[in-house]
Amino acid sequence: MIHYNKKAISEMEKLKRTAFVNSLSGFKSLNLIATQNNNGITNLAIFNSVVHIGANPALMGFVVRPDSVERHTLANIRKSGFYTINHVSNKFYEKAHQTSARYRDEISEFDAVGLTPIYKNNFFAPFVEESNIQIGLKLKEIVSIKINQTYLVIGEIADVYFTETCLMKAGNLDLELAETICGTALNGYHKTKLIKRLNYAKPKFIFD
Amino acid sequence: MIHYNKKAISEMEKLKRTAFVNSLSGFKSLNLIATQNNNGITNLAIFNSVVHIGANPALMGFVVRPDSVERHTLANIRKSGFYTINHVSNKFYEKAHQTSARYRDEISEFDAVGLTPIYKNNFFAPFVEESNIQIGLKLKEIVSIKINQTYLVIGEIADVYFTETCLMKAGNLDLELAETICGTALNGYHKTKLIKRLNYAKPKFIFD
Repeated sequence: MIHYNKKAISEMEKLKRTAFVNSLSGFKSLNLIATQNNNGITNLAIFNSVVHIGANPALMGFVVRPDSVERHTLANIRKSGFYTINHVSNKFYEKAHQTSARYRDEISEFDAVGLTPIYKNNFFAPFVEESNIQIGLKLKEIVSIKINQTYLVIGEIADVYFTETCLMKAGNLDLELAETICGTALNGYHKTKLIKRLNYAKPKFIFD
Repeated sequence: MIHYNKKAISEMEKLKRTAFVNSLSGFKSLNLIATQNNNGITNLAIFNSVVHIGANPALMGFVVRPDSVERHTLANIRKSGFYTINHVSNKFYEKAHQTSARYRDEISEFDAVGLTPIYKNNFFAPFVEESNIQIGLKLKEIVSIKINQTYLVIGEIADVYFTETCLMKAGNLDLELAETICGTALNGYHKTKLIKRLNYAKPKFIFD
């Protein structure tokens, strides 16, 4: 095996280091986060850092860097308290990727990339109509990560919209039926194929 | 589309709600986190919440609930300051899943499930020999998430070991070559297939 230590990583050329370190966390969820500011301008940005925080209350988090292209997302969430998380699917991943470009404040990425904002049940933030799993969240906590001045933004799930065929008997949504895809590093888009669903694990020696 | 609101989610049967909410964050990274206590007893637990925090310094995080089966992981990291994150591959995902069973303190999950601890360059925590991407980390910050008494544990990457064939020219590791897999909800194991790697996005109307 090849060994890179801390020094070797810090001395890598910047783009290569970014690509390398972004590989190490494994496959990533791909979601479009949509917000709206007080002037009614919508914002849409792709995130690969959405993570499960808890099921009861139902909480999701994502990591954001204030100096990055997603800064409008954070500003709009702070002001309005509401946002939506929408699964990226195979049908529109190139449009989702394009939201990562640095558009000016007055431009909505919905218009720029050709995705459709849709408003439901008076929720302040728009959902992405093209997505098969759409989640509306209310901001609950913004946690500061001191070591590199990033934030973990945590919201409680207020509404979930999903295509009926995805719902499984066990309660989970089948993400392959939803055409949800996943990512690697900052630019890899991947389909998946189920290997197996395993039962709840209990202590035993599995070779018994 | 089906609509579940907050009330409907809170009234779901517990196991179904857990499965449902765990689906919503999308595909998840699958990693084995290995630690060791001061008596030399190793601990190994599967996590699906590892997330990229930053590339320079190179930081990774994961979410942990103190009352869960992974509590030995957190206790060992607090005491020793060191841990390893090891990608779960197609070759041993059933053994990785089995680490989620509630073994007693004095039992090492390495022994219980049949995976191999390997020590490298005097790093305190063991790596998982069967894994093709092995990362040694030094604890940097434990962030409290107040709303549900969980923690985001952040470490700086000290060492990375990976199979040579995975390294791509752009700097990233090819996770499919590493046989790394991903997960859904709490029990789904999935292989992936690259759709495409996209270029860095710049502002434009993509239909121009």
